[in-house]
Amino acid sequence: MSILPSPPRWIAADWGTSNLRVRAVGPGGQVLAEAESEEGMGSLAPEAFEPALLRLVGPWLGPGVTPVLAAGMVGARQGWVEAPYRAVPCAPLAAGGLVRAPARDPRIAVFIAPGLSQAKPADVMRGEETQIAGALALHPDFDGVFCLPGTHSKWARVSAGEVVGFQTYMTGELFALLSRQSVLRHSLGGEETDEAAFDEALSDALSRPERGAAKLFSIRAESLLTGLAPAAARGRLSGLLIGMELAGARPWWLGQRVMLIGSPGLCAAYARALAAQGNPAETLPAAACSLAGLATLLPGIEP
Amino acid sequence: MSILPSPPRWIAADWGTSNLRVRAVGPGGQVLAEAESEEGMGSLAPEAFEPALLRLVGPWLGPGVTPVLAAGMVGARQGWVEAPYRAVPCAPLAAGGLVRAPARDPRIAVFIAPGLSQAKPADVMRGEETQIAGALALHPDFDGVFCLPGTHSKWARVSAGEVVGFQTYMTGELFALLSRQSVLRHSLGGEETDEAAFDEALSDALSRPERGAAKLFSIRAESLLTGLAPAAARGRLSGLLIGMELAGARPWWLGQRVMLIGSPGLCAAYARALAAQGNPAETLPAAACSLAGLATLLPGIEP
Repeated sequence: MSILPSPPRWIAADWGTSNLRVRAVGPGGQVLAEAESEEGMGSLAPEAFEPALLRLVGPWLGPGVTPVLAAGMVGARQGWVEAPYRAVPCAPLAAGGLVRAPARDPRIAVFIAPGLSQAKPADVMRGEETQIAGALALHPDFDGVFCLPGTHSKWARVSAGEVVGFQTYMTGELFALLSRQSVLRHSLGGEETDEAAFDEALSDALSRPERGAAKLFSIRAESLLTGLAPAAARGRLSGLLIGMELAGARPWWLGQRVMLIGSPGLCAAYARALAAQGNPAETLPAAACSLAGLATLLPGIEP
Repeated sequence: MSILPSPPRWIAADWGTSNLRVRAVGPGGQVLAEAESEEGMGSLAPEAFEPALLRLVGPWLGPGVTPVLAAGMVGARQGWVEAPYRAVPCAPLAAGGLVRAPARDPRIAVFIAPGLSQAKPADVMRGEETQIAGALALHPDFDGVFCLPGTHSKWARVSAGEVVGFQTYMTGELFALLSRQSVLRHSLGGEETDEAAFDEALSDALSRPERGAAKLFSIRAESLLTGLAPAAARGRLSGLLIGMELAGARPWWLGQRVMLIGSPGLCAAYARALAAQGNPAETLPAAACSLAGLATLLPGIEP
């Protein structure tokens, strides 16, 4: 029996490489409960997905069948079941692309949303398309560019409800590798970020992006020679990497209406960077967009 | 008793973060024996340096005192003993800067060569100054730029026997992190490098360095969508990163006489890249330069 007052109408799952986040959704669309674990796609063999899901959602289930809508790397080739990419230009999500995942437990019916692919330049996304669909559900007339900062930042141009093109930057992954595993880790430390150092590095990288690669080691050198503070080192690394991304992505934001979708901290950093370039980007929370995106798929799976 | 026909006149040590390489040198400068281990500075507490050295050179020692000249991270603050940086402009090495390392074994007298620092832009090197000194010993009239590709590539301008400025790029460390630990690791694999992919990525990154950050993820995307071969993926990553370095370092090589010092494979990649830009860089082997550099210090420590 469900530990909730009544079982959810459906369950939303954001299932990435490192994490699984689930939400029990009530008949009016309200979130009844949330749970998460570190059982991401990267750590699971195909037969381990169902047990990982049930560990989180099992207590919510009632006697009937509860639909589970999932987005993210769970649909990759190494995931639970492959949900083949849909090629842009196309709407970010379409019920027709859903793939049913094999499950033994009769209480769940699991559907996985496919990602998007672009032939030239080659690019792919899994999970962000669902957030874009949600953002469009919340702002149906939006025409412009979504920026989804993260491990692999995505810039996506949307027109008339379709994703017409997108581009990926490995900024978040580079920051994680450089701050935790490179020689720069000795100079960072702590979680604080000096905003002045961020702004200066950002502006440097934007105006002379070809020098970005040369500036990285200066963080270590200044820390050795003049005791650069860890928060300043962190701010500079973040500013350099985001600045290099923004320099490459200039056509995606210069003179464009930009909407950021992501975690509050990361969106704030990108918004600060874009504002310094004269672009007043708006921000939407990733979790709400993801839920709204999965909700658009619900009519397609109901009898 | 030495296992060599006669004990060495001195011992040369390249002691970096990850490795220790030693050579026994005879009275005529000839190498009598070589050895190496993975007991680099990064894995040793201060009191562990002497035993690590003796494990390699112990069998070579005779009854008298053998001088050991060491260069590299062994002289860092976290090393055996700190050999404070010498500030450029200055000759790459000077006997006056040597620091004696404390050793209990009376059969060795260990001296550590200091690295170089630059105040603005902040930069440091440890080990490369010794290779530069060796290159200058082999080519006393050289006036131009040394490029030492590696984990942290160095570009150093030398004039009238002095290093007048230098700049560090984290290209090798970025390649190692991205190829082994990022999402791109799934697309590389093997050790083969496709030269056409290298050339194309290099030329892309050089002509539009601001797009380099955007091109990294294309390696993963093409591997997923069109089955990009691992050797092509490896060539492209290498070409992109070296291209971004060369774009930033353009003033260091454009119209300059460039001499590469490093491992044969890495020097070949840089020479290929520079040749494509019309610069016929020469190449010197790192090991010979390091030995020749340390040898210049010998007169300074002899009574």
